[in-house]
Amino acid sequence: VDEGQRGMVLNLVADLRPADLARIVAHLPLADARTLFDWIPSEQTADVLPELESALRGDLLDDLTSPEIAALLDQLETDDQADVLGDLAETDSAMADAVLPQLEDAADVRQLLTYGDETAGGLMSTEYVAVLETATVAEATEEVRRLAETLDDVYVVYTIDARGCFVGFVTLKRLLLAPSRTPLAKIAETDVVTVEADLDQEEVARIMERYDLIALPVVSANGHLLGRITIDDVVDVIREEAEEDLQRAVGITGDEEISSSIFAVSRGRLVWLLLGLGGAYISGLVIVGFEDALQVAPVLALFIPIVMAMAGNAGIQSSAIAVQGLASGDIWRSDLVRRIGKELGVALINGLVLSVALALIVVASGFGDDTSRLALTAGLALMVVIVLSTLVGATVPLALSRIGIDPALAMGPFITVSNDILGLTIFFAVATVLYL
Amino acid sequence: VDEGQRGMVLNLVADLRPADLARIVAHLPLADARTLFDWIPSEQTADVLPELESALRGDLLDDLTSPEIAALLDQLETDDQADVLGDLAETDSAMADAVLPQLEDAADVRQLLTYGDETAGGLMSTEYVAVLETATVAEATEEVRRLAETLDDVYVVYTIDARGCFVGFVTLKRLLLAPSRTPLAKIAETDVVTVEADLDQEEVARIMERYDLIALPVVSANGHLLGRITIDDVVDVIREEAEEDLQRAVGITGDEEISSSIFAVSRGRLVWLLLGLGGAYISGLVIVGFEDALQVAPVLALFIPIVMAMAGNAGIQSSAIAVQGLASGDIWRSDLVRRIGKELGVALINGLVLSVALALIVVASGFGDDTSRLALTAGLALMVVIVLSTLVGATVPLALSRIGIDPALAMGPFITVSNDILGLTIFFAVATVLYL
Repeated sequence: VDEGQRGMVLNLVADLRPADLARIVAHLPLADARTLFDWIPSEQTADVLPELESALRGDLLDDLTSPEIAALLDQLETDDQADVLGDLAETDSAMADAVLPQLEDAADVRQLLTYGDETAGGLMSTEYVAVLETATVAEATEEVRRLAETLDDVYVVYTIDARGCFVGFVTLKRLLLAPSRTPLAKIAETDVVTVEADLDQEEVARIMERYDLIALPVVSANGHLLGRITIDDVVDVIREEAEEDLQRAVGITGDEEISSSIFAVSRGRLVWLLLGLGGAYISGLVIVGFEDALQVAPVLALFIPIVMAMAGNAGIQSSAIAVQGLASGDIWRSDLVRRIGKELGVALINGLVLSVALALIVVASGFGDDTSRLALTAGLALMVVIVLSTLVGATVPLALSRIGIDPALAMGPFITVSNDILGLTIFFAVATVLYL
Repeated sequence: VDEGQRGMVLNLVADLRPADLARIVAHLPLADARTLFDWIPSEQTADVLPELESALRGDLLDDLTSPEIAALLDQLETDDQADVLGDLAETDSAMADAVLPQLEDAADVRQLLTYGDETAGGLMSTEYVAVLETATVAEATEEVRRLAETLDDVYVVYTIDARGCFVGFVTLKRLLLAPSRTPLAKIAETDVVTVEADLDQEEVARIMERYDLIALPVVSANGHLLGRITIDDVVDVIREEAEEDLQRAVGITGDEEISSSIFAVSRGRLVWLLLGLGGAYISGLVIVGFEDALQVAPVLALFIPIVMAMAGNAGIQSSAIAVQGLASGDIWRSDLVRRIGKELGVALINGLVLSVALALIVVASGFGDDTSRLALTAGLALMVVIVLSTLVGATVPLALSRIGIDPALAMGPFITVSNDILGLTIFFAVATVLYL
């Protein structure tokens, strides 16, 4: 990317979609990204903005003045304007404050910024077509025409009553097919799912997913239409929440992005590593507590990693299923007894298979006269460990959910560490009784 | 649910959306679910079918004859018909074969069944409006009217050329606003993303997500329009793939659902548990290999769980980020050097913090004269373990991806087990040199 190649680069870039251009910008060194950002036409620049990760976007906007930023934002829908401004406010609130009043839709955007980032209000845009339910098809069509320039995606026309309260919607298909003098009230769908602005975005995603919606009206507590959420924004939410769940499961707090700084990444990973260190130290104390047993039969140390791996793994498997089921609504909080019954069945089968496998490994390895007693001890202890740690994994998320704590916290390191401690204690207790 | 309550139950159920009714059916005992399924009107029964998990659906359809099933399916879109029939064929292929020819759209459904379950062809439906690009707005509107009964969700009209090849689309908004004699070719959008029928569904989801599409045309290799994929089906794919990723990360193979049988669940979890057992046995052999060191300094056993927890945890964190980044396209395979540089930075910081924390714990616990040497040994060994296991976690997924293996396999138990072995070896080696 140097000055001489400007024409060629612009030609290449002209046909790219915003999302693709954003990915290229994200992979360029910052200086080159700035140059490219300078070169491309302002309409394309505007479209790329919402696609960038916030850190990089902040770096690129750094060079611009507040009227320049406002001019870019004016080309976006209000929800994207609010997102970009909200991110900007975090790093450079003076600039965000300077940009806001210069926007065409300043009032709408200011209103959108009052909603929490992860709520329905934070997802919705104020670009929609709404007409009185007493209007005719022809009048509604005229309103669509009037707004057609500013609205890219129109699938429905919302109907409101004289007080401005949301009533229902008419699809463009019906508008196209109905005689032009039909009043909308006659053809409107009024059995419509709506949400309030403070609903959590995960719940919004679940509703749009469950009922296969492509747009969802957002209303105030007294029924006024505030905005609409489109499915493309919710798809991003679903992806983000899924990534967050996976990060939780491996013990990453916060939200690690590829562009996050080394310090942010380190901080997000350290919380659970430090807690894990504490938990593992307790596991270590359990082992040291059975030091005498280890001195008499050093071979028992062989089983420490096995017990830890199996307890941790079986527990995290059953906890992941419980967390997923609670999140999707397939498991209800009241399903505790049924869950325990099923997980017990699974644990008994897997415990039996793994115990027999371990016993066979011990026999195959051969430990002199003690071999059969050692095989029996190891197998029996592993059986108990698998059953208990599976049940702990399955029940803790449901218990947490019942007392109002996010069950995802129970997944990952927490279950692994507590099952390590539980598993080692059981193993050495069984070994002391049976083997020594 | 008994006969006397029939009227009341039907009243309650009449206003429910299919997805909600499906959840209730899924939570009822099978006998009650059958009764309820019998009672509700056939249109509602049909809508509930695609929302049910396949095992339960199979049980409920068991009672019905092939004409009854065909009559239910005829009320669904072809993609749902194919999904239900495909599942049915797995448990009762004679019944599926009997149903298929009785369907109104038998030819379409038979064609859809030829595509792989997890491909664009498996997701698409054949319900769409397509007209010649030479047609006028009025003619296209007439075609929408003709198909309006069978097509619920129409957002666009596809245009094709005289050879039947896909050209582009006209949104209903444009159709509504354009003069009725305008030829479609004049107002059609022709810079359109299309996919071929054999494209993997994950790639389909990524494309629709990246370009914010609500419908995606599927074409054959020679450009003929075959069907269209709507975003609601892709939302389900995104959720499923995310759940699958999380299950992979905790070592569950296959796809565990809440309704899966105990044996299916047990099998899906056993694969990695058995491999983990083998890996942990090797870890155990490492410990036994350093038995002499443990006899001389039994306190070293204290650090076994710590090394295992930290090596496993740091590795799974960095591998999860690499797998996520590869899946979303934020990390490219060629980013190896940059990734290593960043992860090294993170590992050095976290390693330092954790090593100092461990050294302080050792000092605080007090181990007589040896305390400071033990603190130094443990801290230094932990530092090396954290750095190496973080780098292993970060690089293995990229390496696997380069040679064409699904990087998600590297996450979870595989990284944990190999880092356990690596970590324990390093720890005892360092301890032998520094401490003994």
